[in-house]
Amino acid sequence: MSEVVTFSEDGSGVASPQGFCAVATSADIRNKQSDRLDIGILYSKTACSAAGVFTRNAVKAAPVLDCERVLKLGTPIHGIVVNSGNANACTGEQGIKDSLQMLQIAESSSLSPKDSFFLCSTGRIGDLLPMDRITPAIERLGATIVDGESDGLKFAECILTSDTRTKTCEASFEVEGRKVTVGGVAKGAGMIQPNMATMLAFVTTDIAIESSDLQSALKEAIDHTFNAITVDGDMSTNDTVLALANGESGVSFDGKTSARFKEALFKVCDTLAEKIVADGERITKVVEILIKGAANERDAENIARAIGNSLLVKTSWYGNDPNWGRLMDALGYADAQIDQYVIDISYDDVPALVSGNPVPENKQKWKEVVSKPRFSIAIDMHQGDSVYRLRASDLTEGYVDFNKSE
Amino acid sequence: MSEVVTFSEDGSGVASPQGFCAVATSADIRNKQSDRLDIGILYSKTACSAAGVFTRNAVKAAPVLDCERVLKLGTPIHGIVVNSGNANACTGEQGIKDSLQMLQIAESSSLSPKDSFFLCSTGRIGDLLPMDRITPAIERLGATIVDGESDGLKFAECILTSDTRTKTCEASFEVEGRKVTVGGVAKGAGMIQPNMATMLAFVTTDIAIESSDLQSALKEAIDHTFNAITVDGDMSTNDTVLALANGESGVSFDGKTSARFKEALFKVCDTLAEKIVADGERITKVVEILIKGAANERDAENIARAIGNSLLVKTSWYGNDPNWGRLMDALGYADAQIDQYVIDISYDDVPALVSGNPVPENKQKWKEVVSKPRFSIAIDMHQGDSVYRLRASDLTEGYVDFNKSE
Repeated sequence: MSEVVTFSEDGSGVASPQGFCAVATSADIRNKQSDRLDIGILYSKTACSAAGVFTRNAVKAAPVLDCERVLKLGTPIHGIVVNSGNANACTGEQGIKDSLQMLQIAESSSLSPKDSFFLCSTGRIGDLLPMDRITPAIERLGATIVDGESDGLKFAECILTSDTRTKTCEASFEVEGRKVTVGGVAKGAGMIQPNMATMLAFVTTDIAIESSDLQSALKEAIDHTFNAITVDGDMSTNDTVLALANGESGVSFDGKTSARFKEALFKVCDTLAEKIVADGERITKVVEILIKGAANERDAENIARAIGNSLLVKTSWYGNDPNWGRLMDALGYADAQIDQYVIDISYDDVPALVSGNPVPENKQKWKEVVSKPRFSIAIDMHQGDSVYRLRASDLTEGYVDFNKSE
Repeated sequence: MSEVVTFSEDGSGVASPQGFCAVATSADIRNKQSDRLDIGILYSKTACSAAGVFTRNAVKAAPVLDCERVLKLGTPIHGIVVNSGNANACTGEQGIKDSLQMLQIAESSSLSPKDSFFLCSTGRIGDLLPMDRITPAIERLGATIVDGESDGLKFAECILTSDTRTKTCEASFEVEGRKVTVGGVAKGAGMIQPNMATMLAFVTTDIAIESSDLQSALKEAIDHTFNAITVDGDMSTNDTVLALANGESGVSFDGKTSARFKEALFKVCDTLAEKIVADGERITKVVEILIKGAANERDAENIARAIGNSLLVKTSWYGNDPNWGRLMDALGYADAQIDQYVIDISYDDVPALVSGNPVPENKQKWKEVVSKPRFSIAIDMHQGDSVYRLRASDLTEGYVDFNKSE
């Protein structure tokens, strides 16, 4: 029996665990007479236990409300339908009807029972879905599944919006000669601020696990991965992370396997979260903000987020300017216990502020650190023992140009 | 006796009320061998009652801490020393010593008693002040005051940082043939988010008023003016609003004059606040966000701020894109009581969403509204009676370019 969790940064992702398939096609949802892949189905013939975490935005898209409904029912799950190009958010009653129709077609065309599918939509808010093109596309996908086809990478492609690349990964470990795999796929790009973002992530696994255990493990993994990243501080109406487990490996989640399963799940979520920040809209840098010595966890998180979402901090990173004064300004309004005269700040391992006093002789070294595409900022508040890690991006002219119209 | 408050959008500002003078010079604080005006004194030979409101940032610059100290002492006030180019923030113990030295020189050179001056600094954070150039500059200013010189516009210029223009205004009214004037001056530009911003504002008046009454009136005026604007959501370490009243008009603040005085004070603060947003760093639009029907005041403010600080909302305004879906997304994470199916949104008077249902036939009209340099967005939450007005700017590529290095 190997203790090792092996890991791959890409691969087929959600289609890798035994018994899962993933298919995609084009419904030209953006109405651009294009054959861009924009709709897909992730499927397991064996019924799955399921877990889900959803946006905390009070304005929730119709498909998010439906996912919450199905998860609450607790019915065995066979798959996920997903489309990009249109979020089906702020679409009133028609949006709810359209969601239910998409699910009904997916379930019937794949020969699956009622309430055995989740639905996710991502893209523009406020437009009705083009159901005349979506309906036949889902019917085609259902037939493809019945034929046993699968292409995890095409599926990873069909969920993208302003992302520039697909995001997949997988982790596996062996238990008495049997292999357990956790596969993942995600999309991100804009509206990326924890809890969560225009972010969709799906995780599949062939371990046998109760839905309640899967929910706990997923929640634990998400808190310090998908929920600890920020691009623009906007939280979307559609954020969804779903996990499905079909048990086909023959290995059960138990005292012997739980640590390795959780490690594999965390690694998959952490890698997808990193890929989301790194592919933020027109960003040039990923900065790890490491807060320690905060009075409590809430303070540590507030401080990290105030810094990671400050426009002035983000633009200075973009300009390779180690403007630690803007860090101090941002942490000062973080609503946390602060004594400005004891704070230490360093860029990677180069001190910028020691006990509230600047170290200007290090200026050239800070500049070198901030000029890198990836670096860390460590801040010790000296108020207690709490820590928080946030991964944030810079803010660029490209982001503004990209988002000034859709 | 006239009931009318007359108003001017510019003029000498703080130097207009009787008995006040304002002077400015260059100390080359930015060390650019330039004669840019960067230090000034506002002065009244007659002792003043005083009021002040300061940043709520937990990281406060040395001069802010000193202003709070002097205000608490309650000593009669004669003036304000102010410099731009360096905020004297995050400067450790030396910063505190430098503040005290600036005050001591201002007081002695203007023949004023100890603790009769306030000090304000604005500009870059984290650098020590060039006291070798500042000391003689303050001495020159002190001598100028004793000679009776005054130039309100030069004073308005010396406090600017990245502002592109001076910001002054004044309001006055007559009481039994005697004229009462309220004059104001401000600087803004970046780090502009209520409570407050890299914002300095000074108000002078020749009415006779107790410090406690002046403090109440100032607080009331600020809440819906300086505290209800946002450019970039960053709150600075140095924000300060100070008011001085010397009584030289011979008119007292009482039951007969209080309404007109408060009206004049509000008008001065409101105009300066508007000028600050309109001169935000490289912005192109000022948008008034009018929330009504919120469950309570806190909700109304949270909703307005979530919208006014959303990068995606701000970039869409810049792009003339009436993307009301982004408004819905932002208000959804505002931490307020929300029912997405009853919300109304309109751009000026053109409905975009009625009871949660889009009105796509108005799309061309929304575009026309959003293409204007000034427009309003009215949102009715239908949850209660509370209202809030926030003035916000767009976010442009110019802002990012401007702030990427200092």
